[in-house]
Amino acid sequence: MTAPVAIGVDIGGTRLRAALVTGDGEVLAREVSERPVGDGPDALGDAVVDALEALTSRLGEGLPVGIGIASLVDARGQLVQGANLDIAGYPLRDRAVAALGVGVSVANDATVACLAEWRVGAARGHGDVVLLTVGTGIGGGAIIDGRLLRGAHGLATEFGHIVVAEGGRRCACGSHGCVEAYASGQAIGAIAAERLAGGRTSAALAREPVVDGEAVTRAVREGDALALEVVLEAGHWLGIVAAGLVNALDPDVIVIGGGAGEALSSWLRPAIEASMAPRVLGHRHRRLPPVRAAGLGDDAGVVGAALLALDERGTP
Amino acid sequence: MTAPVAIGVDIGGTRLRAALVTGDGEVLAREVSERPVGDGPDALGDAVVDALEALTSRLGEGLPVGIGIASLVDARGQLVQGANLDIAGYPLRDRAVAALGVGVSVANDATVACLAEWRVGAARGHGDVVLLTVGTGIGGGAIIDGRLLRGAHGLATEFGHIVVAEGGRRCACGSHGCVEAYASGQAIGAIAAERLAGGRTSAALAREPVVDGEAVTRAVREGDALALEVVLEAGHWLGIVAAGLVNALDPDVIVIGGGAGEALSSWLRPAIEASMAPRVLGHRHRRLPPVRAAGLGDDAGVVGAALLALDERGTP
Repeated sequence: MTAPVAIGVDIGGTRLRAALVTGDGEVLAREVSERPVGDGPDALGDAVVDALEALTSRLGEGLPVGIGIASLVDARGQLVQGANLDIAGYPLRDRAVAALGVGVSVANDATVACLAEWRVGAARGHGDVVLLTVGTGIGGGAIIDGRLLRGAHGLATEFGHIVVAEGGRRCACGSHGCVEAYASGQAIGAIAAERLAGGRTSAALAREPVVDGEAVTRAVREGDALALEVVLEAGHWLGIVAAGLVNALDPDVIVIGGGAGEALSSWLRPAIEASMAPRVLGHRHRRLPPVRAAGLGDDAGVVGAALLALDERGTP
Repeated sequence: MTAPVAIGVDIGGTRLRAALVTGDGEVLAREVSERPVGDGPDALGDAVVDALEALTSRLGEGLPVGIGIASLVDARGQLVQGANLDIAGYPLRDRAVAALGVGVSVANDATVACLAEWRVGAARGHGDVVLLTVGTGIGGGAIIDGRLLRGAHGLATEFGHIVVAEGGRRCACGSHGCVEAYASGQAIGAIAAERLAGGRTSAALAREPVVDGEAVTRAVREGDALALEVVLEAGHWLGIVAAGLVNALDPDVIVIGGGAGEALSSWLRPAIEASMAPRVLGHRHRRLPPVRAAGLGDDAGVVGAALLALDERGTP
């Protein structure tokens, strides 16, 4: 009997990552390529599938493939709306199955990251988990009583689009006041830039050619006051969503992942805890779930995607 | 073989209802009494247990008992925080088991109402359900992939305390900006009274000795403009929470229950749908869950409590 392995793929806004992963979440090999471009959903989707074929063939033939993608994905593996990918309506699972000739599972990237953090990362051993990923956008995943939350149509755990400020900042999704518009890496950069344009000063940010989330992260590490203010406000808004999710789902633990989330974890976590606690019903009479940094970094997507593929096929 | 039956009890702010209920959710007999009073959690809790003993003994001896209560209840059946009941810390399940000599299940009243609406009410046949109850306060319940959502500590689905307006109206729970502070029966009455005090006029409300949620409901039925405005605003805020729950849980259906929720359903439902739709991620590319009125009325609590008792014991 051979140990189960699968290929996990993480399709992000800028990169495709793929890895050969065991059922224990161990990464045996990795491949990375630039995310291909294409004009419109069909051309982009087909280019992505071509790139998938190349990446996965280098990792192994005939293995089940799991895909996590920065897009709203329905239960049929069809892309409903992409945050930074113009790919709505593309039948990714069906096309990938046809191209690769193996079983393919598809889910949102933060959803599969939650599966990975639960099985082998920061939330291991818990039955009820909430993951918030803070990257370019804000994603989410949840484990409910030992099962990955997918929803009736596969569209669950889009926590980044929960409204925290009715009529507030415009979000990339088209709505207003989503937490993503206040606390994503992109929002953190945009808010800092607006405050500089409004007359605030920052020596650290003045040195940056572009004031984006990464620039703000570097500035916070230097102790810059404006950058710190913007990041703590992001934590405040994330804490409001976290409180809502504690009221709704009563998790054992809240995990903060994503590129910006992990880089800013030391500042975000206390800010999240401070704004979350008073907004949880009965907080004086109950223990609140700890807020933890994710443990798997850039591997969360590929590991989670591979675990999803193994879960959905049964482990051989 | 006899058909399974259990006794369901609904402990509200003002009344105790009990019923003999079959496993199919049929009510065979009902008992109602005033909610007893008591000074502090122990005295009140003991008085409630005495009343329970009297009520349930009139319905049948030796049957499993399920209790739904207007309180945050943990997985041990201990009352964590009561909305309109000063009962925090009272070990209701243990005391009820001792007094009644049978198996007792305890959960939040809206949680068990969701179980009832799913099995035999407005959400029958669906795998993923969200219930919002609009009464004195706002409660919630959810079915996730065919299972009642309880959470890691039994404290889940307190949707009434999700924040919709950061720093907003003070809520009975001590926090600010909860949807309960904007859209519960109590809030609807309070907001209408504030607008009257601020100089707005309403012939229908001027006739009411007390401007509470029930008075506003009567005024809406007469076509009163101020009452309609307040109720539509409540629907707007409920729609924001409903959108967050669709983004988070992706249910098949959203059910609006509770006394005020059912009485105001014709006005609340379109207002909820209108504010919910644009705040659901990908709403242009997906079907949105319908918003339906609950089907069981005052029976939802007793039926759900009895079904919970049967679920937890196994049906004999």
